[in-house]
Amino acid sequence: AKVGVESDGHSQSTVSITVVGASGDLAKKKIFPALFALYYEGCLPEHFTIYGYSRSKMTDVELRDMVSKTLTCRIDKRANCGEKMEEFLKRCFYHSGQYDSQEHFTALDKKLKEHEAGRISNRLFYLSIPPNIFVDAVKCASSSASSVNGWTRVIVEKPFGRDSETSAALTKSLKQYLDEDQIFRIDHYLGKELVENLSVLRFSNLIFEPLWSRQYIQNVQLIFSEDFGTEGRGGYFDNYGIIRDIMQNHLLQILALFAMETPVSLDAEDIRNEKVKVLRSMRPIKVEDVVIGQYKSHTNGGVTNPGYTDDKTVPKDSLTPTFAAAALFIDNARWDGVPFLMKAGKALHTKRAEIRVQFRHVPGNLYNRNTGSDFDKATNELVIRVQPDEAIYLKINNKVPGLGMRLDRSNLNLLYSARYSKEIPDAYERLLLDAIEGERRLFIRSDELDAAWALFTPLLKEIEEKKRIPEYYPYGSRGPVGAHYLAAKHKVQWGDVSLDQ
Amino acid sequence: AKVGVESDGHSQSTVSITVVGASGDLAKKKIFPALFALYYEGCLPEHFTIYGYSRSKMTDVELRDMVSKTLTCRIDKRANCGEKMEEFLKRCFYHSGQYDSQEHFTALDKKLKEHEAGRISNRLFYLSIPPNIFVDAVKCASSSASSVNGWTRVIVEKPFGRDSETSAALTKSLKQYLDEDQIFRIDHYLGKELVENLSVLRFSNLIFEPLWSRQYIQNVQLIFSEDFGTEGRGGYFDNYGIIRDIMQNHLLQILALFAMETPVSLDAEDIRNEKVKVLRSMRPIKVEDVVIGQYKSHTNGGVTNPGYTDDKTVPKDSLTPTFAAAALFIDNARWDGVPFLMKAGKALHTKRAEIRVQFRHVPGNLYNRNTGSDFDKATNELVIRVQPDEAIYLKINNKVPGLGMRLDRSNLNLLYSARYSKEIPDAYERLLLDAIEGERRLFIRSDELDAAWALFTPLLKEIEEKKRIPEYYPYGSRGPVGAHYLAAKHKVQWGDVSLDQ
Amino acid sequence: AKVGVESDGHSQSTVSITVVGASGDLAKKKIFPALFALYYEGCLPEHFTIYGYSRSKMTDVELRDMVSKTLTCRIDKRANCGEKMEEFLKRCFYHSGQYDSQEHFTALDKKLKEHEAGRISNRLFYLSIPPNIFVDAVKCASSSASSVNGWTRVIVEKPFGRDSETSAALTKSLKQYLDEDQIFRIDHYLGKELVENLSVLRFSNLIFEPLWSRQYIQNVQLIFSEDFGTEGRGGYFDNYGIIRDIMQNHLLQILALFAMETPVSLDAEDIRNEKVKVLRSMRPIKVEDVVIGQYKSHTNGGVTNPGYTDDKTVPKDSLTPTFAAAALFIDNARWDGVPFLMKAGKALHTKRAEIRVQFRHVPGNLYNRNTGSDFDKATNELVIRVQPDEAIYLKINNKVPGLGMRLDRSNLNLLYSARYSKEIPDAYERLLLDAIEGERRLFIRSDELDAAWALFTPLLKEIEEKKRIPEYYPYGSRGPVGAHYLAAKHKVQWGDVSLDQ
Amino acid sequence: AKVGVESDGHSQSTVSITVVGASGDLAKKKIFPALFALYYEGCLPEHFTIYGYSRSKMTDVELRDMVSKTLTCRIDKRANCGEKMEEFLKRCFYHSGQYDSQEHFTALDKKLKEHEAGRISNRLFYLSIPPNIFVDAVKCASSSASSVNGWTRVIVEKPFGRDSETSAALTKSLKQYLDEDQIFRIDHYLGKELVENLSVLRFSNLIFEPLWSRQYIQNVQLIFSEDFGTEGRGGYFDNYGIIRDIMQNHLLQILALFAMETPVSLDAEDIRNEKVKVLRSMRPIKVEDVVIGQYKSHTNGGVTNPGYTDDKTVPKDSLTPTFAAAALFIDNARWDGVPFLMKAGKALHTKRAEIRVQFRHVPGNLYNRNTGSDFDKATNELVIRVQPDEAIYLKINNKVPGLGMRLDRSNLNLLYSARYSKEIPDAYERLLLDAIEGERRLFIRSDELDAAWALFTPLLKEIEEKKRIPEYYPYGSRGPVGAHYLAAKHKVQWGDVSLDQ
Repeated sequence: AKVGVESDGHSQSTVSITVVGASGDLAKKKIFPALFALYYEGCLPEHFTIYGYSRSKMTDVELRDMVSKTLTCRIDKRANCGEKMEEFLKRCFYHSGQYDSQEHFTALDKKLKEHEAGRISNRLFYLSIPPNIFVDAVKCASSSASSVNGWTRVIVEKPFGRDSETSAALTKSLKQYLDEDQIFRIDHYLGKELVENLSVLRFSNLIFEPLWSRQYIQNVQLIFSEDFGTEGRGGYFDNYGIIRDIMQNHLLQILALFAMETPVSLDAEDIRNEKVKVLRSMRPIKVEDVVIGQYKSHTNGGVTNPGYTDDKTVPKDSLTPTFAAAALFIDNARWDGVPFLMKAGKALHTKRAEIRVQFRHVPGNLYNRNTGSDFDKATNELVIRVQPDEAIYLKINNKVPGLGMRLDRSNLNLLYSARYSKEIPDAYERLLLDAIEGERRLFIRSDELDAAWALFTPLLKEIEEKKRIPEYYPYGSRGPVGAHYLAAKHKVQWGDVSLDQ
Repeated sequence: AKVGVESDGHSQSTVSITVVGASGDLAKKKIFPALFALYYEGCLPEHFTIYGYSRSKMTDVELRDMVSKTLTCRIDKRANCGEKMEEFLKRCFYHSGQYDSQEHFTALDKKLKEHEAGRISNRLFYLSIPPNIFVDAVKCASSSASSVNGWTRVIVEKPFGRDSETSAALTKSLKQYLDEDQIFRIDHYLGKELVENLSVLRFSNLIFEPLWSRQYIQNVQLIFSEDFGTEGRGGYFDNYGIIRDIMQNHLLQILALFAMETPVSLDAEDIRNEKVKVLRSMRPIKVEDVVIGQYKSHTNGGVTNPGYTDDKTVPKDSLTPTFAAAALFIDNARWDGVPFLMKAGKALHTKRAEIRVQFRHVPGNLYNRNTGSDFDKATNELVIRVQPDEAIYLKINNKVPGLGMRLDRSNLNLLYSARYSKEIPDAYERLLLDAIEGERRLFIRSDELDAAWALFTPLLKEIEEKKRIPEYYPYGSRGPVGAHYLAAKHKVQWGDVSLDQ
Repeated sequence: AKVGVESDGHSQSTVSITVVGASGDLAKKKIFPALFALYYEGCLPEHFTIYGYSRSKMTDVELRDMVSKTLTCRIDKRANCGEKMEEFLKRCFYHSGQYDSQEHFTALDKKLKEHEAGRISNRLFYLSIPPNIFVDAVKCASSSASSVNGWTRVIVEKPFGRDSETSAALTKSLKQYLDEDQIFRIDHYLGKELVENLSVLRFSNLIFEPLWSRQYIQNVQLIFSEDFGTEGRGGYFDNYGIIRDIMQNHLLQILALFAMETPVSLDAEDIRNEKVKVLRSMRPIKVEDVVIGQYKSHTNGGVTNPGYTDDKTVPKDSLTPTFAAAALFIDNARWDGVPFLMKAGKALHTKRAEIRVQFRHVPGNLYNRNTGSDFDKATNELVIRVQPDEAIYLKINNKVPGLGMRLDRSNLNLLYSARYSKEIPDAYERLLLDAIEGERRLFIRSDELDAAWALFTPLLKEIEEKKRIPEYYPYGSRGPVGAHYLAAKHKVQWGDVSLDQ
Repeated sequence: AKVGVESDGHSQSTVSITVVGASGDLAKKKIFPALFALYYEGCLPEHFTIYGYSRSKMTDVELRDMVSKTLTCRIDKRANCGEKMEEFLKRCFYHSGQYDSQEHFTALDKKLKEHEAGRISNRLFYLSIPPNIFVDAVKCASSSASSVNGWTRVIVEKPFGRDSETSAALTKSLKQYLDEDQIFRIDHYLGKELVENLSVLRFSNLIFEPLWSRQYIQNVQLIFSEDFGTEGRGGYFDNYGIIRDIMQNHLLQILALFAMETPVSLDAEDIRNEKVKVLRSMRPIKVEDVVIGQYKSHTNGGVTNPGYTDDKTVPKDSLTPTFAAAALFIDNARWDGVPFLMKAGKALHTKRAEIRVQFRHVPGNLYNRNTGSDFDKATNELVIRVQPDEAIYLKINNKVPGLGMRLDRSNLNLLYSARYSKEIPDAYERLLLDAIEGERRLFIRSDELDAAWALFTPLLKEIEEKKRIPEYYPYGSRGPVGAHYLAAKHKVQWGDVSLDQ
C-alpha cells in the first residue's frame, strides 16, 4: 500500500528514536503522541526504543507518566487502547544530559547499544531545542552517539537562521557533522494530509493540470491567520517577526509545492528539484509590494485584548511585524504575471490557513446578464484549507433547479473526507514515519532553504534597516487595510473576506 | 429571473391552450398535470383558458373530473393545493370534434372567442394525436381556429416521419399552413433540468470548456435503457423500431447539445444553428458500426417474461430492433476521432438514461504504479444522468486519507440538488411554458430534423432492405454482446457495466 | 481543380453579362479587363455574350474600341494575346438606354435572346451606377430582362446605404425584385488572393489554429492608408466619409473573415454564418474609442498639397472625416479583451492596406536579457499585406549565426509567391467568376450588412449629430497623433510606424 | 554580445591549451583550425599558448608546418589572413612525450610555466587520444601539469565506455583526478549552430512552444546517414557498432535537447538538469522496437563497393550493426505516446543528419477534398537539418496563386541564413571557446552519460549476447526494409524517403 517507500525494518535491525528536548512543549504535545499513534497503527518497526533526553532530572517512570498524559487525545476511544499504551510506554526511557556534552551523549550511546542488543542500529534524533544549541547537540550526537552499522538521521525544527548569511552558516556547521541526506529539516505544514492530496488531485486526474497555469488562474492567495497574539510569550517571536515565522517557510513551501512543474518522478529529490526551480524563478520582492502591520490593544464587548507591545516579553518600542502581506511573482512560462498574494498575521478575527486559487472570468461569458454587476464573485475558485479542518473545495456556478434560469454558486468538496471513516493523521506522524523510512519528500533541502532566504533576505534587511513603521490594527480585526490596497493594486480581491467563502 | 425570455402576457392579452387528443394517455398523465403545475407556480398568464378537444363525447365536468384524477401526483402535499386545483379546473373546458373537420374547429374557434372576450388572442394547440392525422388537424386548426390578432402556435410530438422523405413531406405539409416559427416540435428529453444545467456548467464556469474537446475526452456514451418490453402495445413501436424511437431524436438531440460549439448567444436560433452544425459535421454511419438486437423470452426465478414477438400486436416474424448500439463520429476540429457511442434498448436489466464522458488517461502518469493494472478504471469520467434521478457527477481520483499513499476514485456531485429544496419541474412544464412564451431553444427546427434524418435514413434503409437479422438477447439482460465488441473496436468500454458506476 | 464550385456551363446553356454603366470608369478600368482575363484563361463558358449598357449613344464598334484600350495592361506580354483579344471583342456588344426604362430593358432582353439562340439562358447584371438609381435599374432588369429558364443574378457595388435605416430600405427595395440568392453585393477586398490564402493557412495547417486566440494574440490591427486626397472629386466622398467608405465595409469584412470560428464547411452560407456571428459578438463602439481626422494643406520641398476643404467639390465647412481610427472588441470566448484596432485615412504618407497580428510576449522569457529594454519589438507579428504587394509574413526571432548569442528578428514570408510564376489575378476576376458560377462566399449577405451597419450607425449618428470636430493633420503625414493615444490606451503600438515593418 | 558567459580573461591571466594527441587526424583537421579561427575572430584571450603533445618526435617548427597546412580551408579568402596566421603559429609549440609519463608531463608543466610568465595560469587539455589511455593521460596531466592558481580543464572525446559498467568505471577513474566541473565531455553535434538555434526558436518566440507537445506532434525522427562505409578502417568501429557510435550519444543528445522542458535558466546546469529528466523519463527500449542491419557488397554501374566484412580490419563473421533503427518513447506528460524514431547507418545512399518533426493532421480538415488521397503528405513538418547544410525549415500548405482553389506544400526556411553574410563557425570552435570560458551547456555531465547508458545497455547486451543477426542491405541503398516496418508499426512514415523532402 505504500508508494515509493521501502521499509528499513528488517527483523535484525532496530530503530532508536531520541527526542532531544523531551521536557519541552512540542515534545509533550506532538512528538510523543505522534510516536504512539504510529505504534498503534503498526507503523513502527518491530524493534524500537524511544529515549527522552533533556537537562531536567527525571526517571524513566516519570517520563512515562508525563508522556501518558498527552496520549489520550486522539486514540482513547479506540479498542484495546489502554493495552497498547502500556506496551508503548515500556519502550520509552529517559536520559538526562547537557545538550553540549560529549560525555553525556556517550552515556546515552551506551544505553542505546544495550537496547539494540547487537542488531543493526538505526538512530533518529529529533532536536526539539532552541536554535542556539542546535549545532552543539548535533556535534555531540554525531560524534558520540551515531550508529556504527546503520543510519543516523537528525530532525531539526525551524528557525533555520534569520537570513541568508545565518542560515548558510548554520547549514555549514551542520554539514561539518552530517551529510545532506542525514539532515531532515521539518516544516510540519508539509505533513498535512491535503498537501499530499494536492499533488494527487493535480497529477492523477486529467482534468486539473490543463487549468494549472496563467491562462486560467488569475491569482493565488496563501493565507495564514491566528486569532490570538503572543500572549506573554513574545520573546522568541519578537526576534523573528511574522515574515520569518510564517511566510518564508510555511507559506513559501506550500507555494512552491503548488506551483512546481510536474516532477520527473515522485521521488524526494525530483520533487525538491522542482520546488527549487520555482523559488529560483521568483522575482525579487519589492518593498512596495509588502504591507507590514502590528496589532494594538482593542476592547470589544467589555473585553480588552492587549496590544503586541503590551506583552511583557516584547520591547515597548518594538517594530516587529505581527502581520504581513506581500505580492510575489514567478517569472516562468507557467506563472508569468500571476500574482501570488501572501498574508500572515496574529491576533486577527479568525484562525485559518488556506490556499485560494481564483480563476479568470469566463471569456465572452454568455450568462453575463445573469451574473450582472456581481461579476467577480462568479468566477471559479479552488480553496485548499489546511486548518482548522482540512478540505479542498471548488466553487462552481450552476443553475438553481426550477423553471427560468437563475445561476448560483456552490462549493464542490473535492476531498470527500466524509466518505472515509479513518481519522486524518497528525502532520507529525507522517513526518516522523517518513524520517524513519528515509523518505525525504516533505523535508527541506539545503538549496531550497538557501533559495527561500535569498528571496526574503533583501526585503527583511530593507524593513529592518530603515526601521519601517508597521500599520497598526486592532486585536481581533481583519488586519491592516493596506493589505486590501495591495491586493487591489494587483487587481485581486482577498477571498477570505467575502461572506460566501 | 427569466433569461432571454420576454413575456407576451400583457394584461389585455389572453392565451387559449387547446389539447388536441385530450382523452389520450399523454394528455392525462403529462399535459394537464404540467399545465396545473404551471398554474400553481404562477407561471401562466392572468387570462387563460384550457380546452380539451377529441373525438369522444364528454362534458366540461367530465373532463374536469378526468383531469382532476391525475393532478394529485406532484402537488398535493403543498399548501392550499385543493383551492388552487378548484380554480384551475374552472378554466378547463371540453369540445368534442373530428380531427379533420373544419366545421368542428370553427365551432371551437367560436367558443375560444367567447372566452377571449375581445382581448388580444394567443392560441396554443398541443397535438397529442397519431401522426397520420397531424396534417389534417393542423390544417383545420390553422384555417378555422387561428388567432386573428395574436399568435398561433402548434406543439407537435414525434414521430416526425419515418425517414428523410416522409419527414420532408410532413414538414412541407405543415408549412402549407404554418410558418416555421409557429411549429414547436417537442422532444421532452430536452426539457430535462440537467440538459439545461449542462450548458450552464460548461459555459458559465471557466474550468469545463478547456476540457471539452478531443484533446481531453476519449469518448462519449449516450445510453438509454428500459427495463420493460412492449407489453402488449407493440403495434406502433413495431412500425418504427428503437433507432427511430430513441436514437434519431432523443439521443441525437442530447448529443448535439453536448457537442455544439459555443453559440453566439443563448437565443433559440443561435443554439439551434450550432446544433445543426454538429449534425452536419457527422460522418455517415457505417452499417458495421451498428449492432441491432431484439429481446426474446426469458425465465428467471420462476418468472417468465415474454419475447418481443410474443407480443400479440407484433408480427411473429418481425425483425424490428428493440435494441441498437452505434458508433458515431463528428468530423470537426473539436471532435475529430472521438467515438460517440449510442446504446438504446427495451427489456434490459435496468432503467436509465445518461451521458457518460470518459476522459483520456493522464499522460505520463506519475501514479501509474498505484493505479496498477486496472488503469482504465482510474480515468476521470463525467456522468450526466437524465433518469431515473437527474444528476451530474464527476469521477476523480484522490488519496485515501491516512499514512502511506493509496489512491481511490470518488464521485463528485456537480449538481448538489440536496442544496435546493425546490422540486425539479417535469420536462413538460418547462416546454409548455417555453411554447407559451415563444422561447424556441428546446424545440427542434426543420433543418435540425432534416439533418437528423439525413444521418440515420441510409442506415435504416440498409437494415430494412437487407432484412438484417437482429442479435437476440434475453429479456432483462444487459443486451447483445455485440455491443461490447462494437465498443472494443473503438477502444472504448461501456461505462454502465462496471461495478463502480 | 476547383473546390466546392460546380460548373453551370452545360454546352446547351449560355451566359449573358450586362455591364450596366458601361461608360463609367470602373467598367473601363476593371470590369471589361477582368472579363477579358477570364476569357483568356479559359474560365468563361463556351457560349457567352457581353453587353455594355448605358445612357451614352455608342455603337458596338465604339464600345469595342473603348474596351480594347484598357485590355492591354495585364496580358499583352503573353502569347497570342492579340488573337484572343479579337475573339473576345467580337462577343462584346452595346445597348444604349435609360436606367429606369422598362422599354429600354425590354429591347435589351430581345437582343440577349437573339444571342442566346434558344439555349438555357443565364444572365448576370453588373450594376456600375450611382446608388440613387440602383433600385430603378434592378426593377427594370428584373421585370423586363430576366432569364426565363436559367438564373438571373445582379452584382451591386457599395455604397449599400448610409446607415442601418437607409441600408435596410435599400435591401427591402431590392428584395421586391430579387431573392437573396440573386443579389451579389461586392466588396472587392474580399476578392484579394491573400484573403483566400488567409483561410488556407489557418485551416489547412495544424500550426496556426492553436495560436488564433486571445491566449496568444495581443492585438490585431487593420490598416488602410492612401497617399492622395480627394483631388477635386470629393463630392461623393464628402457625403460618406472615411468610416462609411472604408471601415464599415472593407476593414470590417476582413476583420470578420480573420476572426471567425471554423465554419462547418467552406460553403458560402457557412462562412457567412460565421462572419455574422463575429459581427454580432462585437461590443458597441464607444465614441471615446474613436479618433477622427481631416487633412489640411501642407507644403513640403516647395510642393503644396491642398487640404480636404480646398477641394472645390467639398463644402468649405465640411467636418467629414478623411481619417479615422477605432478600437473594437469581440466579446466572445476566442477574442474577449483583444483590441482590434482599425485605421483608415486619405492623404497620408504611404499607400497600403494590411492586417497586423501582434502576438503576446513570451511568458517567462529566458532570453529577456538579450531583448533588453526594447522588449516589445521582439514579439512575434504576423503581417498580411493586401496592397501594394500581396504578402503574408511572420516576424520571428532567431539567433544571428556565429559564436556568442545575439538575437535578431527576421521576416518569414509565408506566401512564397516567388515560387509561383503565375500572375495573381485581379480581385474583380475572381469575383466575377464566382458570380457566374454562383459561388457566394466572397459576397455580402443581407444579415451581414445589417450587422455591420448596426455596429457603426450609432457611432456615425453621434459624430454627425454632435458635429464633432476632426483632428487636423497635414497632407502626407502619418495622420492625427490622437491615433497613437488611442492605441496606447489599449496597450498597443501601431505596427506600421516602426522602422522595421 | 555574449550571453550568460563571463570572461575569465583578465589581462593578468593566460590560457595554455595543450592538444594531447597533436599528430592525430582530428587535431590536424579540426582542433588546430578551430583554434586559429577563434584567434582570427578575436575570441581567444590576449595571452595564450598552444602546445601540441604526442609521442612523435617533432620540433616547434615542424608542428607549425603541419598545422599551417590545414589552416587554409576556412579563412584564406579573408583580409590579412596570412599575417594573422603568422602571429598564431608563433604561439604554437610542441612537446613530445608518452601519455602515461608523469615525467614528461612535468617537463611540459615547466615549459607552460615559462610561457605563463607569472600570470594567473589557466590550462585546458584537449585529449585527442584512444580511450584506453584516457585515464593515464588525465592522471599525469592532473598530477604533474595542473594550474596552481587558475583553472585546469580537460576536454575528452567519446567513446565514454561501452556500456553502463565501463562508462561508470571510466567516470570513477576520471573523478579520482578531476572534479565534475573540470571534465568537458564533448559531443560535437551539440556545437552545431542549429542546435543552438533550436532553443532560440522555441524559447524566444511565442508561436512554437504551444505546439511542442504530444497534442500537436505525431512523431519525431532523428536520422543520421553516411554514404560511405568503414573503408578499410573498421577496426575501432567493429568494437562499438553504430548504436554506440551514433545513437547513444549524438542522436540521443539531440533528442534530449529537443524534448526537454523549459529550463529555469539558460545556465549549463539548468539545461543539463532538464536533459537528464528527459533521459530518465524514457521507456526501456524493447528489442522488438529495434532493427539492426549490416551492409554488404553492391555493384552499380560497373562500380563495386565492398561489404562491411570485406573490410580487412573487420572479422569475417562480424555481426556488428552498421545500421540501426529504433523507436523510443518518453513517458512524461508532454511526450506520452509520441514515437521518437532514430535511424543511423553507414554506406547508405545519402549523407545527412537531421531531425524531422511530423505534426498531426488537421482535425476536421475543411480542405480534405483538396488534399485528397495523399493526405499524409499534407501534414506540417519541421525539418532541422544538421548536415550537410545547416537549415531549419517548416513545410506548410498554401494556396497556389490564381483562380480556383488548389493547395500546395512549400518549405518555409526559418533560418534565413542567406540574410547573414557571416560564415557559420565550425562546431569545434564553439565548443573550444565554451571550454575556455567555462560555459558547460554543450558538454555532457556524468549523470547524463549514466542515464544515456542506462537506456541503451540492456538493448546492447541483448543483441550481443543473443548474437542477433543483422538484416543485410546493399552498399549505397536506403538500408534494411525492416526500418519501414518498424516505422509503420508505430504509424509513422520516414520523412527522408519521400520525393518532396
